[in-house]
This record gives sequence, structure tokens and C-alpha cells, in this order.
Amino acid sequence: MQLVECVPNISEGRRPEVIAAIRAAAESPPGVAVLDVHQDSAHNRSVLTLAGEAEAVLEAAFRCVRAAVERIDLRQHRGEHPRIGAADVVPFVPLGDTPMADCVALARRLGARLGQELGLPVYLYGEAATRPERRLLPNIRRPQFEGLQALIASDPTYAPDFGPARLGPAGATAVGARPFLIAFNVNLATSDLGVARAIARAVRTSSGGLPAVQALGMRTPDPNVVQVSMNLLDFRVTPLGVLFQAVREAAEQRGVRVLESELVGLAPTAALAAVAQSVLSVRHLSAEQTIETRLLEMLLQQRSAGDP
Amino acid sequence: MQLVECVPNISEGRRPEVIAAIRAAAESPPGVAVLDVHQDSAHNRSVLTLAGEAEAVLEAAFRCVRAAVERIDLRQHRGEHPRIGAADVVPFVPLGDTPMADCVALARRLGARLGQELGLPVYLYGEAATRPERRLLPNIRRPQFEGLQALIASDPTYAPDFGPARLGPAGATAVGARPFLIAFNVNLATSDLGVARAIARAVRTSSGGLPAVQALGMRTPDPNVVQVSMNLLDFRVTPLGVLFQAVREAAEQRGVRVLESELVGLAPTAALAAVAQSVLSVRHLSAEQTIETRLLEMLLQQRSAGDP
Repeated sequence: MQLVECVPNISEGRRPEVIAAIRAAAESPPGVAVLDVHQDSAHNRSVLTLAGEAEAVLEAAFRCVRAAVERIDLRQHRGEHPRIGAADVVPFVPLGDTPMADCVALARRLGARLGQELGLPVYLYGEAATRPERRLLPNIRRPQFEGLQALIASDPTYAPDFGPARLGPAGATAVGARPFLIAFNVNLATSDLGVARAIARAVRTSSGGLPAVQALGMRTPDPNVVQVSMNLLDFRVTPLGVLFQAVREAAEQRGVRVLESELVGLAPTAALAAVAQSVLSVRHLSAEQTIETRLLEMLLQQRSAGDP
Repeated sequence: MQLVECVPNISEGRRPEVIAAIRAAAESPPGVAVLDVHQDSAHNRSVLTLAGEAEAVLEAAFRCVRAAVERIDLRQHRGEHPRIGAADVVPFVPLGDTPMADCVALARRLGARLGQELGLPVYLYGEAATRPERRLLPNIRRPQFEGLQALIASDPTYAPDFGPARLGPAGATAVGARPFLIAFNVNLATSDLGVARAIARAVRTSSGGLPAVQALGMRTPDPNVVQVSMNLLDFRVTPLGVLFQAVREAAEQRGVRVLESELVGLAPTAALAAVAQSVLSVRHLSAEQTIETRLLEMLLQQRSAGDP
């Protein structure tokens, strides 16, 4: 039983009936739940969060993309967010104890189906990338739909991994695999924004801090509190506890006290298990050792075995 | 959506066809999974672990008890474990963020049904007890089936909470609510069993240590390692991290190093979330904030709404 998440980014954030149809398509396979639909009309873009058993989520992702390409014409699409297609980006994300390799395999299988059955050009990105320069999504998306129309046929840099080397009205799709991204903020007892910015620089990857960390110093509504706002891109590379400890030590060095921290949105059980494993000096501790994850897997197994 | 566990203790550990029938009854309602069946032929007793959505688990517990009382005659039952009935003990345990009060309510509803529909005398125990002396199971079970036959009708101490004040061949049932019990061991780098015993005394409730902790010092297969073997009876009263820290400090005071610890079996996500909450100084962090728990709840909701 492999649990996975899939986060299709769809180039439609304005027409509610289109978003509803795409959502309905995504949640039509049994064993899949749509955990969230984030609709953004300025970006004219919606982000769906699906989760469930791997095969069911693969089918859900396919139906979601099909519903999007049937309804969205990129030649008419205007919005602030860069995009190359109706179903713009589709990452698979491991949940439970699912290995990343399984999500890479799902990405490749979805890519192949989208190319063959829907005639969509597909670029593999992230952990599923077939070329190093395609690991980062901005490299794929740079020309956007409009620029990609010429480049896809003429420039080998833009040759798709699956599907034809030409764009239809639904454009192309980037399909990938990536770790779960955790949004994590730490509040500091100071009014000095410079302290938050200095700590952000100390911990983030881009200025030589911890791996897989993005960080910014920010103000908060309380003038006596500033915040180090972080994206942890891979909690297996830098555990949450290690990141928090680094922020706390950097704050202490500056004579500033940590007030509290905040986990924004949902987190995978494995991220909490990793914190507990480290604190409790437990040799083996995984998401599979929680009752809720075991129960989830058993219920999904019953379902796929055709039980009521 | 309330997630709960239920752990029926059945007075049959020898006849496989009887255990199989009881298990099948327990897993017959949709939305319930049997996570484990522990069969003990010396005790002539089996322990089932069911989990799922509260209403489904309540129905599963009823069917499980009914299957047991139809098949087990206490007048024939021999085994080393104290018992008062065919379905001897049925505790409800909160999972996810379910409050204990919900499990108390489930225990009372099950007790009422068992009394009315099956004519079973029922004693409420644990958090569901109606009398202080019934909080502890041994007080209820002391006379055992054989002694209870006379006492139930004559001694007001043994008047049941539900059902008739007389025993049939299936005896009586103790129905209750309790927190999740976590088995947690810490290994120490010493051959001196006295150290493990002294630390066990330092942390356990019965000798003035932390609340909700049972602890023993034990040898391990490795002669250079001893173990503090613990039951944490309520991780909300004494968080796992606090217990581990207390053991580590007691070891350090004796100049002994902690090697590693071990979480035996499954633990509720909430126990790991509580560790992470404390370590990361997060104000709010609950089982509901894990993807897996949210997904579990959504799939159970779909199921109870009649979706495939």
C-alpha cells in the first residue's frame, strides 16, 4: 500500500463551473480524496490537493488533467502566473513511508498516458526529470505557452519527454515528483526586522545555511514581533527539529527570544515521526507506526479488494 | 468525524473457528478495520484491535460481543487470565483528536445495547465508570465468573450498570473508555540491573514519579544492556518527551548513558504530534494537521455518505 499526494496546478481560477468539473473528475476514482482546492482569480489558476492509494491517485490525476484540457484554451488564458498549459504542473508527493522512487514511477506513467491518450506534450521535472536542467520547474516554464509554440518544434532543449513536439490549445504539462513542502514560521520577540532577516540568511540554503531551506525575514501584525518565514523543501534532508534548533540558536546569538512557531497547513505524519524519533532516540519510527496511517492503509486495501 | 479504537478482550484463545467468526463479525460494518488479533491459548483469550469512525466502531463492537456470547460458554472456560464473561472487557480509546468524552458516551451506548438486546449484565469501567471504585478493572473482575454468580444478585457492590442482575452462560461484560496505552522502553549502557530498577522507581507513578507511568527494570538479551520497560497510560498527562527526558536525567545522575529507546507496536499520531509540538514550540499541533489523518477522515466521510 503506497500513499501519495498529487497537486495538479490548473490554469483556471475564474470560471467556477470549470473548476467544479475538474474537481469532480479528480475525485471520481474510489480511494481518492480532494483535500483542498485553492482558487486564485488574479493568477487565473487553481491548485488541487489529491491524496490516496498510488494507483487510484494516478487515475485521478489523469482524469483531472483530461477534464482541464477539454475545458481550457490557453490561447484565451490571461493571468499573472507563468504557465505552459491547461493542466500546467502535476507533481506527485510521497505520503506515509512511500519512497520517492514510487512517485517518480507514477510521474513517468502519467506522462506517458497524457502523451499517448491526450496528445499532450509532457516535460518531466523535479525528481522525475530526465535531464538535470529540467529538475527546476522555472527552466521548463520560462518561454510560457506563447513562447513554447515555436521552441517546442525547433529547439531540442524543449523537446518533450512524452507526446508530440507541437502545442494544441491545451498547451503542455510538466509532470514531476517532489518531497512534501512544509511551510514553517518562527516568531521572535523583537521589533527589529533586521534580526529576522539575518537569521533567515543564516539558515537558508541560498546563503550557505541548511540544505532544502528557503527563508525570509518578515514583519507581523504585532510591531514587537518579527518572523522567520520558511519553506522546508525536504524534511528528510533537513528535519524540522534541526531547522527549529538552528533558528533558535541564531536568535540566541543575537540575544533574541523565540516566542513560538507555526506549522502552516497540513504536514505529513512522517515529518512529525522524524521529530519524535530524534527527540526520543528511537531507532525505528515511521509514519507506519501510527494507528491512523495503518488504519488508512487497511481501509484503502479493503476498498481496492472490492469490499463495501 | 470521530476516530476511535476499540479493543475487545474475548474469552476464547484456542478454537480458531470461533475466533475467526468473532473477527468476521467485528469487521463486518463498513468503515471499520481489524488492525490486530492477538490470540493467547494459555490464557484462553484473544484481544482484537478495531478502529474506524465512531458509529461504525460502536456497531462493530456490538457485533463482536454478540458473536462471542453466542459461541462461548463460561461454564466450560478454563484459562489463566481472570475473566467475568465471554466478551470480557471492551474499552473504547480515542484516536485522532477525538475527546475522551466521546468514548465515554460510546461505552455507555454499547453497555445499554448489550443489556437490552443481549441480556448481558454490563459494568462500566475506566473513564466511563459510574462509581469511583469501578474505574479500575481488577475491582470489577476480582470475583471472576464463578464468584460473580452469587454476588451479582446479593451484593449491591456488584449491581450491574446495565442488564439483568444475573449471569447467563456468557457471563458479564466490562465496557469502558481509556486513553491509548503506549509501551515504551529505554535501553541503558550498563550491565547493572539495579540501575534500571532504580530509574524505574524514579519515574513510575506508584513510587512517586510521573503520573500515568508504570515502569520496571529488566535485563535484555545483551548482558551489557539493561532496560527501563514502561507503560505510558496517558500521553496527554505525561507526554512521551517528558517521560524520556526524566529517564535520561535519572540515568545521567547515575553516570549511565541512554543507548536508544523503542516504541512497541503502534502509537496514535497525537502522541507524536505532542512531542513535535513541544520540541518545535508550536502553539497548535494536533493529529488533524497530518495529511494522513485528514485523508483518513475524508475517506471515512465519503464512505458513510454512501460513495463507492
